[in-house]
Amino acid sequence: MGEIQLRLSLAIFTVILLIGGIKSEEKYHYLIKEFVVPLDHFSFLSNATFSIRYLYNDSFVRDQSNARTPILFYTGNEGDIELFAQNTGFLWEEAERKHALVVFAEHRYYGKSLPFGKSTFNTSMPEHLAYFTVEQTLEDYAMLITYLRNGTQRPVVTFGGSYGGMLAAWFRMKYPHLAVGALAASAPILQFPGITDCDIFYRIVTSVFANAYNSNCTVNIAKSWRVFETLGGTDAGKKQISDAFNLCSPVKSDADLKKFLDYVEEVYSNLAMVNYPYSSSFLAPLPAFPVRQVCFYLKDLHTTDADLLHTMASALAVYTNFTGTTKCLDISATSNADESGWNIQTCNQMVMPFCSNGTETMFRPSTWNFNEFSEKCYKDYRLTPKPYDIILRYGGKNIEAATNIIFSNGLLDPWSGGGVLQAPNDKIHVIILPEGAHHLDLRRSDPADPPSVRDARNKESAIIARWIEEF
Amino acid sequence: MGEIQLRLSLAIFTVILLIGGIKSEEKYHYLIKEFVVPLDHFSFLSNATFSIRYLYNDSFVRDQSNARTPILFYTGNEGDIELFAQNTGFLWEEAERKHALVVFAEHRYYGKSLPFGKSTFNTSMPEHLAYFTVEQTLEDYAMLITYLRNGTQRPVVTFGGSYGGMLAAWFRMKYPHLAVGALAASAPILQFPGITDCDIFYRIVTSVFANAYNSNCTVNIAKSWRVFETLGGTDAGKKQISDAFNLCSPVKSDADLKKFLDYVEEVYSNLAMVNYPYSSSFLAPLPAFPVRQVCFYLKDLHTTDADLLHTMASALAVYTNFTGTTKCLDISATSNADESGWNIQTCNQMVMPFCSNGTETMFRPSTWNFNEFSEKCYKDYRLTPKPYDIILRYGGKNIEAATNIIFSNGLLDPWSGGGVLQAPNDKIHVIILPEGAHHLDLRRSDPADPPSVRDARNKESAIIARWIEEF
Repeated sequence: MGEIQLRLSLAIFTVILLIGGIKSEEKYHYLIKEFVVPLDHFSFLSNATFSIRYLYNDSFVRDQSNARTPILFYTGNEGDIELFAQNTGFLWEEAERKHALVVFAEHRYYGKSLPFGKSTFNTSMPEHLAYFTVEQTLEDYAMLITYLRNGTQRPVVTFGGSYGGMLAAWFRMKYPHLAVGALAASAPILQFPGITDCDIFYRIVTSVFANAYNSNCTVNIAKSWRVFETLGGTDAGKKQISDAFNLCSPVKSDADLKKFLDYVEEVYSNLAMVNYPYSSSFLAPLPAFPVRQVCFYLKDLHTTDADLLHTMASALAVYTNFTGTTKCLDISATSNADESGWNIQTCNQMVMPFCSNGTETMFRPSTWNFNEFSEKCYKDYRLTPKPYDIILRYGGKNIEAATNIIFSNGLLDPWSGGGVLQAPNDKIHVIILPEGAHHLDLRRSDPADPPSVRDARNKESAIIARWIEEF
Repeated sequence: MGEIQLRLSLAIFTVILLIGGIKSEEKYHYLIKEFVVPLDHFSFLSNATFSIRYLYNDSFVRDQSNARTPILFYTGNEGDIELFAQNTGFLWEEAERKHALVVFAEHRYYGKSLPFGKSTFNTSMPEHLAYFTVEQTLEDYAMLITYLRNGTQRPVVTFGGSYGGMLAAWFRMKYPHLAVGALAASAPILQFPGITDCDIFYRIVTSVFANAYNSNCTVNIAKSWRVFETLGGTDAGKKQISDAFNLCSPVKSDADLKKFLDYVEEVYSNLAMVNYPYSSSFLAPLPAFPVRQVCFYLKDLHTTDADLLHTMASALAVYTNFTGTTKCLDISATSNADESGWNIQTCNQMVMPFCSNGTETMFRPSTWNFNEFSEKCYKDYRLTPKPYDIILRYGGKNIEAATNIIFSNGLLDPWSGGGVLQAPNDKIHVIILPEGAHHLDLRRSDPADPPSVRDARNKESAIIARWIEEF
């Protein structure tokens, strides 16, 4: 189970890589700067330091000497900060409206902000991973903001999506003297042990598929697992699968089959996340509302296994080969430093349980087994996860004392299950986007945006303006 | 200067040792328990743990199964936790009124909560001191409270005096989901570089002395330094001083003279702090309003140096020999682990600048020199102080976002200069005790308490009741 959970907890990361490539013609400009931070903010064991990167654009600032100029500060998350800068158009639009300084800070251990350079993720030096925590990262941002304010009381608003949204919210909670407020888009701060059902993610994905075209979609997908397993039991069946899906590396073993099925499940999750209302392109181009397209292929119930198999292949191709130019389907996970990064975070603090009740979702049944997960973490990284760290520090559901945070969630986003959907007080703003996928509101305005997203951005803009004004 | 500053920053600590002995016939009872905490909460470098002590009394709890039973939690500060338990009568009285569980938690590195046992303060192992920080301590308390709540939502109120009051307030700021409120008595959370004048402490001590009897008191004290210096310039003069003050170790060198004068200044500071309205006893018994007694001796202006010298000796004896049973005056600072403790904290995070403008105080002129101070810290402990750590994390004067904290300050307390005397919002309560010395309100009720202290306790009790009720 450990592997499946690890893979699923990677979903946040994955989507960012995916979104990273959307509309590559859009380009925001900035200076790339560096900022020296202590390796360890919370002990006096050593004075070691390293540099994090941040992106800086003051072209919207009208009066450089104005000590009240707002700073819009993106609390970087699990990836190269340039990806976030290019895919958080709403922050840029807000900067223009509010004549604000734009800063995107890179999260330690991602992109080029590596504390130990090339050996940061060297598995023979597990001590290099010791300072890869939320608190150290928030403290990096606190120091950077203090530096950027330069002795003034400039109002700072933190922005973030997904894990970045969690950081934006937590930053406001822990450093309210440094940020007047936070926009936390699609931030699943409740996706932690004991406070959110582990099957919520898969249930939402299932619901998105069930409502995309007709209900046969999820019936077919749910049925497909048995078909795959049955076929996968023989060499001929394995070949049948490989051919139907045009796999670059044919399924030859049970391990290969498992990897393939894991991949297919991940595709469904990703599709739900990026189920955007306009055509977008990432690893391969996607149509608007891609889940609807997938389910269009799966609209009929199929009587034979072979029939279903081929329909599934067509459906999956919406994600894997929309343009028809993919030669064969490569399901091997490409591992890079950033992916390592998020894997490691799930193995120290970001322990997010996932499971699937086979009867209520279209996914294969799976359970959450922390011990197995923990053992794998130790094996992979010599890390023993602390599953309750985040709740202990940030309060879990008990965030009544927090103020000036916008939690926005799209109901089509499987991560909304771990999001804040009810405001605990009138200084926390919950914005629901019924047609929204994963942090759609953070993206730049698009003519195809549904009214709910436009409304959400308008509300967010007004709330942020009020924070800045009242400060 | 470093030494003077170090000595002065010890003042908080000193008074606790002193108060520790007051009314030794009073005894509160408790179980002594242990709680295992990680050595380092904020990195994944090692899984090392150790135990902190805590004192526990549930005799006031009416219904053990009531998941709403309040917990009054003393956030232990720089000393053996049993001293605080015996000298925080108000918490016990509140527990009785509110049928609450009483917990006094011992601060790591104090009392018996030593992470490395006997070698904790071994100067050849400076790495042992690495985890001696405010954040690690607050996290210890967060874990202990979570454990004590045992899955319930019991309302917790943190209590603390002096540095303990700072911890109580900061705990509420950073862990509002774990504490409904904090009573921070005489908590100088603003006594940090750049936000409070470094001479405020000495100016308040001077003011207390100037107003205690008549204005000649501070004139005499201010004049005395020159007398001491002049006399100290010769061997005969040194003997004269030693005889007048009945020193156990006569002043023989300039270094001895300096040590003696440092001691005298410290006595004045301590006198102001424990200038309680009732007779109290510590190392030696003290009369009610001891500063008044001291100044009674100093009410006349003296024409000769010898005359002044002997009057000073009589005045100082209020503090050093009130019962007349002290054989000779021992000015050697007794060093124990706890005193080491506070010295170390001033050398990592608790950097509190002190200085004295010779014309506005009765003290010798002194300046605050961070570099000298820092060099001494490195020499003594291999520590490089981080003077802005506390402001970065807890906001300095910018605490508008905090709620449910009572900051109480006695205006006769020199630490009130670094206290919160103006409420930044209506959920922060500032209670001023015009006749109050250092956290007098935290002590048990006494018939000699002035009305302002009784009023303060009543207000505090009502506010705490409201927090618990509203929770």
